[in-house]
Amino acid sequence: MHDACGVVGISLSDTTANVSKQIYYALYALQHRGQESAGIAVHDGKVIRTHRGMGLVSEVFDEAQLGLLRGNVGIGHVRYATTGASCIENSQPLMAKYKDGAVAVAHNGNLINSRELREELQAAGDIFYSTSDTEVMAHIFVKELMRHDLVEAVRGMMRAIRGSYSLVMLLGDMVLGIRDPLGIKPLCIGQVESGYMVASESIAMDTLNGRLIRDVRPGEMVVIRGGEMTSYQLARCQGPNYCVFEYIYFARPDSIMDGRLIYDVRVNIGGMLAEEHPADADTVTPIPDSGITLAVGYHQRSGIRYKECLMKNRYIGRTFIMPDQSMREAAVRLKMNTIRPNIEGHELVLVDDSIVRGTTSRRIVDMVRNAGAKKVHVRIGSPPIVAPCYLGIDMASREELIAAYKTVPGVEAVINADSLGYVSHDGLVKAIGIPREHLCMGCLTGIYPLEIPGEKCQVAQTKITEYIE
Amino acid sequence: MHDACGVVGISLSDTTANVSKQIYYALYALQHRGQESAGIAVHDGKVIRTHRGMGLVSEVFDEAQLGLLRGNVGIGHVRYATTGASCIENSQPLMAKYKDGAVAVAHNGNLINSRELREELQAAGDIFYSTSDTEVMAHIFVKELMRHDLVEAVRGMMRAIRGSYSLVMLLGDMVLGIRDPLGIKPLCIGQVESGYMVASESIAMDTLNGRLIRDVRPGEMVVIRGGEMTSYQLARCQGPNYCVFEYIYFARPDSIMDGRLIYDVRVNIGGMLAEEHPADADTVTPIPDSGITLAVGYHQRSGIRYKECLMKNRYIGRTFIMPDQSMREAAVRLKMNTIRPNIEGHELVLVDDSIVRGTTSRRIVDMVRNAGAKKVHVRIGSPPIVAPCYLGIDMASREELIAAYKTVPGVEAVINADSLGYVSHDGLVKAIGIPREHLCMGCLTGIYPLEIPGEKCQVAQTKITEYIE
Amino acid sequence: MHDACGVVGISLSDTTANVSKQIYYALYALQHRGQESAGIAVHDGKVIRTHRGMGLVSEVFDEAQLGLLRGNVGIGHVRYATTGASCIENSQPLMAKYKDGAVAVAHNGNLINSRELREELQAAGDIFYSTSDTEVMAHIFVKELMRHDLVEAVRGMMRAIRGSYSLVMLLGDMVLGIRDPLGIKPLCIGQVESGYMVASESIAMDTLNGRLIRDVRPGEMVVIRGGEMTSYQLARCQGPNYCVFEYIYFARPDSIMDGRLIYDVRVNIGGMLAEEHPADADTVTPIPDSGITLAVGYHQRSGIRYKECLMKNRYIGRTFIMPDQSMREAAVRLKMNTIRPNIEGHELVLVDDSIVRGTTSRRIVDMVRNAGAKKVHVRIGSPPIVAPCYLGIDMASREELIAAYKTVPGVEAVINADSLGYVSHDGLVKAIGIPREHLCMGCLTGIYPLEIPGEKCQVAQTKITEYIE
Amino acid sequence: MHDACGVVGISLSDTTANVSKQIYYALYALQHRGQESAGIAVHDGKVIRTHRGMGLVSEVFDEAQLGLLRGNVGIGHVRYATTGASCIENSQPLMAKYKDGAVAVAHNGNLINSRELREELQAAGDIFYSTSDTEVMAHIFVKELMRHDLVEAVRGMMRAIRGSYSLVMLLGDMVLGIRDPLGIKPLCIGQVESGYMVASESIAMDTLNGRLIRDVRPGEMVVIRGGEMTSYQLARCQGPNYCVFEYIYFARPDSIMDGRLIYDVRVNIGGMLAEEHPADADTVTPIPDSGITLAVGYHQRSGIRYKECLMKNRYIGRTFIMPDQSMREAAVRLKMNTIRPNIEGHELVLVDDSIVRGTTSRRIVDMVRNAGAKKVHVRIGSPPIVAPCYLGIDMASREELIAAYKTVPGVEAVINADSLGYVSHDGLVKAIGIPREHLCMGCLTGIYPLEIPGEKCQVAQTKITEYIE
Repeated sequence: MHDACGVVGISLSDTTANVSKQIYYALYALQHRGQESAGIAVHDGKVIRTHRGMGLVSEVFDEAQLGLLRGNVGIGHVRYATTGASCIENSQPLMAKYKDGAVAVAHNGNLINSRELREELQAAGDIFYSTSDTEVMAHIFVKELMRHDLVEAVRGMMRAIRGSYSLVMLLGDMVLGIRDPLGIKPLCIGQVESGYMVASESIAMDTLNGRLIRDVRPGEMVVIRGGEMTSYQLARCQGPNYCVFEYIYFARPDSIMDGRLIYDVRVNIGGMLAEEHPADADTVTPIPDSGITLAVGYHQRSGIRYKECLMKNRYIGRTFIMPDQSMREAAVRLKMNTIRPNIEGHELVLVDDSIVRGTTSRRIVDMVRNAGAKKVHVRIGSPPIVAPCYLGIDMASREELIAAYKTVPGVEAVINADSLGYVSHDGLVKAIGIPREHLCMGCLTGIYPLEIPGEKCQVAQTKITEYIE
Repeated sequence: MHDACGVVGISLSDTTANVSKQIYYALYALQHRGQESAGIAVHDGKVIRTHRGMGLVSEVFDEAQLGLLRGNVGIGHVRYATTGASCIENSQPLMAKYKDGAVAVAHNGNLINSRELREELQAAGDIFYSTSDTEVMAHIFVKELMRHDLVEAVRGMMRAIRGSYSLVMLLGDMVLGIRDPLGIKPLCIGQVESGYMVASESIAMDTLNGRLIRDVRPGEMVVIRGGEMTSYQLARCQGPNYCVFEYIYFARPDSIMDGRLIYDVRVNIGGMLAEEHPADADTVTPIPDSGITLAVGYHQRSGIRYKECLMKNRYIGRTFIMPDQSMREAAVRLKMNTIRPNIEGHELVLVDDSIVRGTTSRRIVDMVRNAGAKKVHVRIGSPPIVAPCYLGIDMASREELIAAYKTVPGVEAVINADSLGYVSHDGLVKAIGIPREHLCMGCLTGIYPLEIPGEKCQVAQTKITEYIE
Repeated sequence: MHDACGVVGISLSDTTANVSKQIYYALYALQHRGQESAGIAVHDGKVIRTHRGMGLVSEVFDEAQLGLLRGNVGIGHVRYATTGASCIENSQPLMAKYKDGAVAVAHNGNLINSRELREELQAAGDIFYSTSDTEVMAHIFVKELMRHDLVEAVRGMMRAIRGSYSLVMLLGDMVLGIRDPLGIKPLCIGQVESGYMVASESIAMDTLNGRLIRDVRPGEMVVIRGGEMTSYQLARCQGPNYCVFEYIYFARPDSIMDGRLIYDVRVNIGGMLAEEHPADADTVTPIPDSGITLAVGYHQRSGIRYKECLMKNRYIGRTFIMPDQSMREAAVRLKMNTIRPNIEGHELVLVDDSIVRGTTSRRIVDMVRNAGAKKVHVRIGSPPIVAPCYLGIDMASREELIAAYKTVPGVEAVINADSLGYVSHDGLVKAIGIPREHLCMGCLTGIYPLEIPGEKCQVAQTKITEYIE
Repeated sequence: MHDACGVVGISLSDTTANVSKQIYYALYALQHRGQESAGIAVHDGKVIRTHRGMGLVSEVFDEAQLGLLRGNVGIGHVRYATTGASCIENSQPLMAKYKDGAVAVAHNGNLINSRELREELQAAGDIFYSTSDTEVMAHIFVKELMRHDLVEAVRGMMRAIRGSYSLVMLLGDMVLGIRDPLGIKPLCIGQVESGYMVASESIAMDTLNGRLIRDVRPGEMVVIRGGEMTSYQLARCQGPNYCVFEYIYFARPDSIMDGRLIYDVRVNIGGMLAEEHPADADTVTPIPDSGITLAVGYHQRSGIRYKECLMKNRYIGRTFIMPDQSMREAAVRLKMNTIRPNIEGHELVLVDDSIVRGTTSRRIVDMVRNAGAKKVHVRIGSPPIVAPCYLGIDMASREELIAAYKTVPGVEAVINADSLGYVSHDGLVKAIGIPREHLCMGCLTGIYPLEIPGEKCQVAQTKITEYIE
């Protein structure tokens, strides 16, 4: 399961300050949100300069490169590899030059009417160079901007696009932070020593020794310029629809998102799992790394002792030679090794964040059994994933999702577990601590917060989105 | 002095053939035309795939990368580093996705109305991502194509753009080769074992064991598709205006361009120089590499013996550490060494292709004097460069051109030569063997084959460009 | 604190098998023991081929390189960066060619009489190319081998050298595994599908889907050849002297070393710390990664809840740009971030493996205090380090060791802790479960298992080393 | 045909000066003598530091690396890839640490008694880590040095070793330059601004803006220390035996070697060829690059016009993808292209430096015929190579040398030439201008200047080598 991106924008009030290194460190703090490509765009009072490249932040930028990106205002982006489009053309920030200047755009999210918007624009003669939603938004934004003032232009763009978007834009010496009316993907506001910033997660502020002010509100645009921040509430829904998987998996445990510490949410989910799916076991153990905090929660609520049974090898690099068929057994072991003495003869609760296709889970259960586990009770920190995500997560197609066509006992059999327990919808909601109607649970329910052709929708939501003049 | 680019397009009739490796080798043969970036776009019957990168052809592509570029039809591009825009965004082929599909564009040349076209398009709402002419042409071409058939669309684009352009485009399974009505930059047609190709120079055909058929005519478009080539004469001028500097400097000596073998032209120019500017000397010697063939010609006509006096070191790579200030003397020597015994006590004719700013010439004359030359007669294979090039060569601005503000005796004094002789306009024309009115000599005369704001123009030419319906 | 190396040797009985890929994966499993350089030597029935390079295993070797290392018998090595000698010359395996053939040597450990042996050999005319102990051993071994049979030669070498050494050698088609009479550094024997292996840690066997047979005994040599393993007990002490820091810090938690699962030992140490140094706190939290298992142990024994308060960023690469002075605050945060809500207002037990200079501990305590901790009780999984290690760990010099010149209250003050507790010598010994006299605790006591000039020694040990004929 | 190496040593009198960059540039000037590996060793008044690596000088060293090599005295080495031993172990300078210090050794040449010396040393217990002669010399030198003073030690080494050797050594703060008593491989002395240097070719002095003083004499050692140079004539033969192939092929044309400008020698050889083997042709053309100066000489003496017919592509890099079988035709063309119009219908004299196996010559003659040549007269600037070189050139084994088993008409037939003419022994000697008895022509005559098992020898020479006390 993959997230799309991490975004950041920083504006320092001191015009002689150099923001590119701070963006570099902020992107590094957001690196877990995307490792395929990285990019920075900086404005120096006159022009925007950008540099983008494939790879980790530390691979794309060196001192010399950062030195060329002079300016006190800038934005940055990290991107995850999604199928079939791993190319420099799709990396961001995208810089569009239009009639009155240039705008750089960094986007986290996914539009659901991207294709039709693109076709409309193409029908009117527009040309595209990438396959990204970002380019579509850039086109619409620029068209609006040519006819309206900034606020009206952003409102116009928001009217046109549907889906999830946390956008950071660099327009002249302004940093814009925009969050879709449903607030699906995260975006928060922070203060650093001599300025303001927006970023996907609060950890970016921590890294720069800044402090989190608050989240950008769904439907809000914040404009940072010359040391001042202004807010515009451009659209309003009945309520937000935060992506639950940010809480379960994507965000770093040390981030605070929409008022909730991710770490606490995950401990809560683990506790909820322990209540809903107790197990007759002597050991609770995580599948590292994403299962760790969940397992701590299960252990605390159940009282069953916590013990690590699987160790991850952290040295696999880009050029690592994977074993061929004859050593396939080894391939799993290279990434994850069993601590046999902690497993042998024991009854385990094995905690993971989710099951997508079921193949990895099966392989790990088998490994643990081979290491002598008497029982393997699998506990999952999300409800069954029964439907695809159209709003920013490159999960899998419906046919690939095991829970889309198998019951829980069916999945249990496939992954060879003695018992399988998913956290319930209610349990998850309670653990997060945000009202159910304010969460996007599309992949868990098949009901989405906005119309998607061929899918069910919580009609109310989209209908009532109100664009505030 | 820098050229802009090299372009190639190949269409193999066998739909199972793989064209990407042939494009790779063709680009390698054209590598002298541009070392900054390289790119290939290939069509596999369904989609166009591209890969572009900074560096030499051999650095940008590896076996794996070429393997992904499947298809029997494709185009390629190498680009020279021009000031201030050495970035991945400006690399080519540029692939534009529009209403009905995608088109990949590779361009050699320079538009003179690029800025105004861009502004018009931007005024109408268009967005640009690079600073290249190519993107402007892509926009215009696509707009035309949405309203007209291919032939009419290309004609429409040609009507709109002014300047030099040798274009290779990949449109679906078609390779298009287009040359501007003045024929300023070269483009030729060749045959390979199972198909046709177009390329900047005939050496690309040689490398693929193919054969040169003919040059693309000024104002002509050739369309290669499924093993067939069709020609469309879309525009016609009174005559062509071939860039003289292709003959003097850019093209490889083993290329045949508009019917002339570059090697022969250079020998002729050298001979002309000997006639026009005889010297009381005992040795003719080139500044390598571009002066070599010119010097051979001077030697043949003058009867003065040919002897190498300067040796070039060929191992300077991208990561070579250049000397700092204290070793500046060494910097010149690292690239070029004098053969003292061939120089000491001798009276030399030193032959080079051109003088731009005069600083390099001065440094070499000094080196040769330090090596003991009794006399240094400098002979230059081009007339004085008195005006900038707006049509594809990143030469220098007028203020930097020494001959723009100094007489020949003045330049002679600056470069510290005992005598200085440039080939005359007539001599050059005779050496090339193409009527003067069919050559572009803008940088040598300040009179250009088309209107350029603030510059003189051979009015007749442009006026009579006729677009053939 | 740094370990020296990881070693491995594998002999497959099938002479057509290719061992280099298995060595590659085994080295990858041992990568935590050394990231500076990596090397492999393979014997193909006729000659030994080697390849060594600077960097991670995945950076030093590619498919092509491994393909050249043909053979069914081989050894490998990973090396840690130790001060001032990070160069290709010191990388291993070292291949020495002597009168009757060649021997490749891979070493983990440190000789204490290396300098005098080297001087003796140099006085007799020998030449050295590196600064490594390994070369000294190669010289002595070869000299012995020229006069004696293999067993006698190894015994002769063992008589001459003093210190810690776990050696893996490739001599013709034989893999030798040799452990010093004190057994200071680890070495174990395993079985893989079609052969035997020796390695620094049992995790190497796990990775190859093999199984741990037993540890190489102190003073033992095992010879693996043609699918057979033979043991020679060449020397015997009163007992072994296993390095305690392998248990505390170096080894992977999933390794079994001299009969003890590292994970269990660390949980035990954590428990012992809880008994010896209880704390009036509400949260136990580790300094990741090395404090994690210790903290789990503390939590289990104390009943105080376990909560992560510090998160590590795992993406720092070789080319990461570290912040300059003005952003020094950031430097700590880049590697480790506080989860403020888990800290603010809480009384913490902060668990780490050791304190060397005290500077890092201080910085982390400060960070935690800035995040709002009410109390910070530091608990350390080793007794105070009061003396240098001469036997394989590049710790620090005595002057740098804070506990060498400060009392516990003194260190407590320096690191700014509310309380500081080190595990006691007895507690550590009990936690490991090996009699005190069978452990090397030189760095904790200043008393070493063999004579070191200027240091105290457990005289009995070395005296009674008996070389078995 | 491959040469072995290039060597350089520089000593600056100013102890605060930094010599490593000058060595870097000198090695760059000698890069044509070896592209496999490069290395530098520098002495800073206390210790020697070295860095070696595989690849070009510009690839092995960067600013940071050179910055670490501090010192005012140092040596350097570039090495050619010779079969089967392309590895870091064989790169140079080799630094040997012995009883009283360290010595770094850089060698150009080949010992003929290397194997027996190595076996003697190994029999006495010595160990070797590489397969190079250099290591053998280091062993012998150090052994001598432990018993004698420097001069006596070098004399002792010279007595022991037989073959060709131009050695540059760094011993403490001394640079030693040593040339074998036969003077087979070149070595010369130069002066730079604040010190002295020795190098394989005078071009290294030119590059550093220094001046050539003279060649090191056969049998001479020069010692450079603290701004002073001292000479020791340690051995004397009846006369020198300079390698003729340095004049024909290896050295750069702008080098002066043993008093002869290489360029002049090559022009002379070309002239001699014209006299000895006139041809009824209309064009003289070289096979670039090594045939160029020879062809100029042929043209001058014959009066037949000089015209380039083959162009070399200079962009082939380390990672260039070579064509597979199906495009083998292309492989030749990628490196060398015919200028068809200069060839078609013409009768050519094709000039090259030598014929080894005959395969390349055949391929080029075929290419030229395919381009329409009416006649192809091949002229070769060396006499037939009939025997292997044992003294520094990795030519080929006797079985591979076409002239070892075929007459000139036989070779003519194989390479498909209309006529074939080699320069005669007398002609070559006359062209070089050094008495025949002072040249090594082993590969051309099968008679060597010193005893080689199974080969004939000019007995007189070696016999009378006299070691001067």
